Amino acid sequence: MPRPSHKDKIIDAGLAVFHEFGYHASGVQTVVDHAGVPKGSFYNHFKSKDELGLEVLNAYWRQSEDMRAALRASDKSPLDRIDDHLASFNVTRSGCLVGNFTSEMANEPQFRVALREVYASWIADFEACIAEGQNDGSIRNDETPKALAAFIVTALEGSVLKRKLEDDEQTMVSFRKTMLLFLRAG
Amino acid sequence: MPRPSHKDKIIDAGLAVFHEFGYHASGVQTVVDHAGVPKGSFYNHFKSKDELGLEVLNAYWRQSEDMRAALRASDKSPLDRIDDHLASFNVTRSGCLVGNFTSEMANEPQFRVALREVYASWIADFEACIAEGQNDGSIRNDETPKALAAFIVTALEGSVLKRKLEDDEQTMVSFRKTMLLFLRAG
Repeated sequence: MPRPSHKDKIIDAGLAVFHEFGYHASGVQTVVDHAGVPKGSFYNHFKSKDELGLEVLNAYWRQSEDMRAALRASDKSPLDRIDDHLASFNVTRSGCLVGNFTSEMANEPQFRVALREVYASWIADFEACIAEGQNDGSIRNDETPKALAAFIVTALEGSVLKRKLEDDEQTMVSFRKTMLLFLRAG
Repeated sequence: MPRPSHKDKIIDAGLAVFHEFGYHASGVQTVVDHAGVPKGSFYNHFKSKDELGLEVLNAYWRQSEDMRAALRASDKSPLDRIDDHLASFNVTRSGCLVGNFTSEMANEPQFRVALREVYASWIADFEACIAEGQNDGSIRNDETPKALAAFIVTALEGSVLKRKLEDDEQTMVSFRKTMLLFLRAG
């Protein structure tokens, strides 16, 4: 396996630091210290902190693809797939980088575009799964798959946000239980 | 009416600036410039930016009391009261200061305590309203009032967060519609 390049090390460090401390609270110096590379190396690879921020968002989204793959696991029922996906949010006080960046960076045009793409692809994964559950009669059908999908994603980001204030997983466990109750056809 | 004191001007400016640009992205200099007071005046009234941040959260919460009063309007039905409260979230790209501070400041002990109190009192207002709706048979009763209340508040903060990425109010309108559908007894 090749050694990670300075660029990869900086992206990994940026992900860890921005996720734990927040985007504006973390300077380039903190990132390069965490990466163990000289500061000059940063500017060989990135024009600005924002360029790194966008790469970090991209890397985070790629790394969480396995979680979304649960929504497409065709050997399980749609509701079980949704439950599995929600259960995979082992989030801590650091929250979700997507939600954190939405809070801090939504008004920066490049982040805005990137974040919208992230939500759109996430909602599309839910939507396909929900459509299947509506067809087989297991998921409520008084809303479109798209409306239900958008509701789940926004509510989920809210519960991940709230989780930052808690000492235990109760917020996430309750959220998952209530959401499944909501989705199940009556 | 007495003229606003420098302290009041700084709190108002802090609220405006932290809400629009975020907490870490806004320095004390930006706040005093916005308030139109000399920087020295800031340190006559506040030991630190965090002391101001906590006062700002407190002021924001007091100012939004009218919105929560809708949940206690005894001349309306519980579901209508919840709908009125949700409809009062005329949020913009700046989001909700409570959600923004949760994202940025949840891990700072003093903010953590203050934010937990904010959520607890908000959830308690919902809880009383939901209990009434369960008693009169209008609200679903397969979850406790407290669990439903916590679900609404966390989901609502998620939709306010998502609203930051949108150009219109659709996120909030859809959220409100879906939440009412969920709450209504079947």
